[in-house]
Amino acid sequence: MRHLFSGKLAKLIFFPVAVSILISCGAPEEKTSNTSATLDAAESSTDFLSSWQDGPKNKIMDWVKSTTTEGSTDFIPEKDRIAVFDNDGTLWSEQPYYFQLAFAIDEVKRLAPENPDWEKDPSLNALIKGDMAGFMAGGEKALLKAVAVTHSEMTVDEFDARVKNWIKTATHPKTGKHYNEMIFQPMLELLQYLRANGFKTFIVSGGGIDFMRAWTEEAYGIPPYQVVGSQFGLSYVDTTASPELIKIPELVFLDDKGEKPVGIYRNIGKRPVFAGGNSDGDYQMLQYTSTGDGARFGLIVHHTDSVREVAYDRESHIGQLNKGLDDAAKYNWLIVDMAKDWKVIYPYELK
Amino acid sequence: MRHLFSGKLAKLIFFPVAVSILISCGAPEEKTSNTSATLDAAESSTDFLSSWQDGPKNKIMDWVKSTTTEGSTDFIPEKDRIAVFDNDGTLWSEQPYYFQLAFAIDEVKRLAPENPDWEKDPSLNALIKGDMAGFMAGGEKALLKAVAVTHSEMTVDEFDARVKNWIKTATHPKTGKHYNEMIFQPMLELLQYLRANGFKTFIVSGGGIDFMRAWTEEAYGIPPYQVVGSQFGLSYVDTTASPELIKIPELVFLDDKGEKPVGIYRNIGKRPVFAGGNSDGDYQMLQYTSTGDGARFGLIVHHTDSVREVAYDRESHIGQLNKGLDDAAKYNWLIVDMAKDWKVIYPYELK
Repeated sequence: MRHLFSGKLAKLIFFPVAVSILISCGAPEEKTSNTSATLDAAESSTDFLSSWQDGPKNKIMDWVKSTTTEGSTDFIPEKDRIAVFDNDGTLWSEQPYYFQLAFAIDEVKRLAPENPDWEKDPSLNALIKGDMAGFMAGGEKALLKAVAVTHSEMTVDEFDARVKNWIKTATHPKTGKHYNEMIFQPMLELLQYLRANGFKTFIVSGGGIDFMRAWTEEAYGIPPYQVVGSQFGLSYVDTTASPELIKIPELVFLDDKGEKPVGIYRNIGKRPVFAGGNSDGDYQMLQYTSTGDGARFGLIVHHTDSVREVAYDRESHIGQLNKGLDDAAKYNWLIVDMAKDWKVIYPYELK
Repeated sequence: MRHLFSGKLAKLIFFPVAVSILISCGAPEEKTSNTSATLDAAESSTDFLSSWQDGPKNKIMDWVKSTTTEGSTDFIPEKDRIAVFDNDGTLWSEQPYYFQLAFAIDEVKRLAPENPDWEKDPSLNALIKGDMAGFMAGGEKALLKAVAVTHSEMTVDEFDARVKNWIKTATHPKTGKHYNEMIFQPMLELLQYLRANGFKTFIVSGGGIDFMRAWTEEAYGIPPYQVVGSQFGLSYVDTTASPELIKIPELVFLDDKGEKPVGIYRNIGKRPVFAGGNSDGDYQMLQYTSTGDGARFGLIVHHTDSVREVAYDRESHIGQLNKGLDDAAKYNWLIVDMAKDWKVIYPYELK
């Protein structure tokens, strides 16, 4: 369960690059042709991957060039250009605890006055009183309880509105920034660069799918139908004139480890050719991606920057990265050293 | 379970309409702007909905025009233009039984020699011997058995290859046509027309999701990640150098009736604004779509053509349409009379 607590996001100022392309209305949906104009724009633009140092930047660009150039032995048809990314720790920060847990904690406090019975639960009561140590002492059970009471027994629209409101107002305990300001600038550039080259970008996260969808479109340019995540149950209730979907407190899918390839196939239906992750929870997603036929790219964000972000890997309770480091060479995964490879971490550093 | 048996499809000659559009690489992914050039092309083209009679054609076109014209009170932003379609009986035929069942039957016969133990099962044995009456006497249990042995215990790639091979070779018992030639020409035109106007088109079917994905991209221009359907379980097996997803004989999601809105929210994450169906299995999907805020369009394909297709509705075991007819006026659903409203049924009639 430890990976159920995830993300939120940011009002990003994207660089609008108008690219004139050809669309064939009859052929596979939204299939965009990489006309030479598109490729030229992508390859010559100095905006793409500008927050990356040359080493990893060239590795990524060389691979994209070889897989999008017709006639290349590594060429990948546009319909197969599926790129998947973990969210917590890969597209935004995840310390000192998953941001989705911060949402749950904030919501418990906000909603406590109208839910007096919550005080009878020792762990919820500790949380309401501001006793984080007491709350955490309740372990996984306490975490699940806080998530359950803040993530279910309401319509999907109500939940969506609550997350959107929280994102706009809550701030991170260490940086004081809104959580959606703590997305990674270099990864945003990577998403844009891949899309400009005909890739479809998906999130595949252990975080709650509805929690992420409330903000991923604005933050990353990734629409709700390209978000895969853990899921609570849903119940369709049509007893009123306005039927609604109600979230029920039952975890029906935990999108972590070996379930990530399952989530990918259920929601996407194709084996990805590009995967980015940061923890051993992403190991199987990276492995599944890298062991398919043809050209493949795997990337691991290694949290090495104790000054600009947080340094952690093999021993961390959150975002543990151990097996992934051991097997990176075997699968040819690019280990991205945040301290050395990224010129900036967060978009607000550019302002 | 009766709706687990569904579809397959067609090598369609689409009319390639090259439309020059602008894409903003930074903004929400693949968001295409409806420049006036795009709209002009769509609205002035005589190709769009050319197999529809003027009555229903104008109703559809008026709605699309009002929802895609900026400044209109009914305007729908492009990111919210989600259109969902049932498959069996809506996008292709479903008689005398769901085409997915035809696949299962054909596969049982094809694979029987290498599975001698199947003969010990009375219903499978009847099927192998060509005794359809004996097989059908086994009821739902027999159907499920035939589906289970032909849809699981293999990799997803193997299953995909089997469906693709069957689609290329099998023919319909009545028309003698390949199953993928029995998709509905007017619905293809509707899919193309909606996409040309910035709508994303999704399939939401009781049919098996992997069965459909093997051919929907080629037939309808709908890629795998825009297909929602019933699902068997999947297991990620990484005991070899080439990890694979294995299909397991456990139905984990039946995408029918009240579960259709659930499947929509799980896979798409937004309430659709346009829905097309043909049976009471689509009732809740249509209802969920039609009761949202703002402009909505619901459409029911009514099988009225006993000459060119099959006439059936309230009393049919397959694709029963009863409640949908009763409540069509209440929800303002357009009932499409196949005999009267469609100039052609199948694409091959145009040749």
